[in-house]
Amino acid sequence: MIEGIDPRLEGQLAFIQELDRLKGVLRQTRVLDGARQENSAEHSWHLAICAMLLAEHAPPGTDLLRVLRMVLVHDVVEIDAGDAFAYDAVVNVGKEEREQLAAERIFGLLPADQAKELRALWMEFEEGATPDARFAVALDRLQPLLLNFHGQGGSWRYHAVTADRVRVRMAPIQEGAPGLWPLVLRLLDEAVARGFLLPAAIIADTG
Amino acid sequence: MIEGIDPRLEGQLAFIQELDRLKGVLRQTRVLDGARQENSAEHSWHLAICAMLLAEHAPPGTDLLRVLRMVLVHDVVEIDAGDAFAYDAVVNVGKEEREQLAAERIFGLLPADQAKELRALWMEFEEGATPDARFAVALDRLQPLLLNFHGQGGSWRYHAVTADRVRVRMAPIQEGAPGLWPLVLRLLDEAVARGFLLPAAIIADTG
Repeated sequence: MIEGIDPRLEGQLAFIQELDRLKGVLRQTRVLDGARQENSAEHSWHLAICAMLLAEHAPPGTDLLRVLRMVLVHDVVEIDAGDAFAYDAVVNVGKEEREQLAAERIFGLLPADQAKELRALWMEFEEGATPDARFAVALDRLQPLLLNFHGQGGSWRYHAVTADRVRVRMAPIQEGAPGLWPLVLRLLDEAVARGFLLPAAIIADTG
Repeated sequence: MIEGIDPRLEGQLAFIQELDRLKGVLRQTRVLDGARQENSAEHSWHLAICAMLLAEHAPPGTDLLRVLRMVLVHDVVEIDAGDAFAYDAVVNVGKEEREQLAAERIFGLLPADQAKELRALWMEFEEGATPDARFAVALDRLQPLLLNFHGQGGSWRYHAVTADRVRVRMAPIQEGAPGLWPLVLRLLDEAVARGFLLPAAIIADTG
């Protein structure tokens, strides 16, 4: 609280200050030199770069400004709720409730109009039902795929994830960025061929 | 190089992969818990958040989409050229030449049309002559000011920087985001009052 600052600006500054904490939320994915885990702030930036660069692969009618704003705030709830590793079912229990509470608190720091707008944009990403959200979700799946591939397996290797599970996880790309789906299939095949990713689990034939 | 990937997409992916290295370029500014230096990828994300939130303080005619694209790539040349601490004159010698070479190499990874467009956007930021660039530059000054203020002095304290030098450094905010200038003056006064920042150096009276 600084005396003499307009309350609206004070709310905006409080949000900007609070968001600094996203730099301390660690993801399972590793940065490419492998030295450490990526944090959610860096990930959000890298995702925004992907959106800028790959916009031509978005479905018709996608609004890049909305997509950028969406990806920039898509992970802010992790400040309270943490990053739940996608392939771990246990830590994902109760995730939605935790994230809703976090959204209320964190977006609630903003002036009411901005709080409402950004929370709705975050919710739109979560629901993934509009073209903008579908494209944003597709990139949110593609970015760690690229890091894991170029990082010779990265978090896949560490957690012994199989190709069939990654393929299911990547499915939103098929609809959200259809032009990138052949790339995904090619990278998964290549990742298995190079030993970065385990092939599909073999189901014991008990028949 | 992955067989069967379209060369245009391959260039886009090479750029996205290369940009991961910005997560390893350290700035003098520290994250708010003080535990470590901020890296340029996180800084770029935080700057984009500032642009989104503070757009109402931009000069008339500012295009937020262009500003966001500009701030997202404004520091990529640091992958080759490093981050030069603003208050260190020595490390800033030759900075422009190093950065031009870096821009040629890094943006050159992209397909020609995107390389040309993004390099021009980066150059526009460097020159700071358009309303979009002036707003982006203003935020690039404001974001470390906020971190240093909320971090009880942060890199100012570490480098014994004085208030008069910070005020000169912040001058682009007066033109690029005039609505935020009173905030800057208020924060500088308060930073001196709280002992986060040294007052102006006293010039010995030799008369």
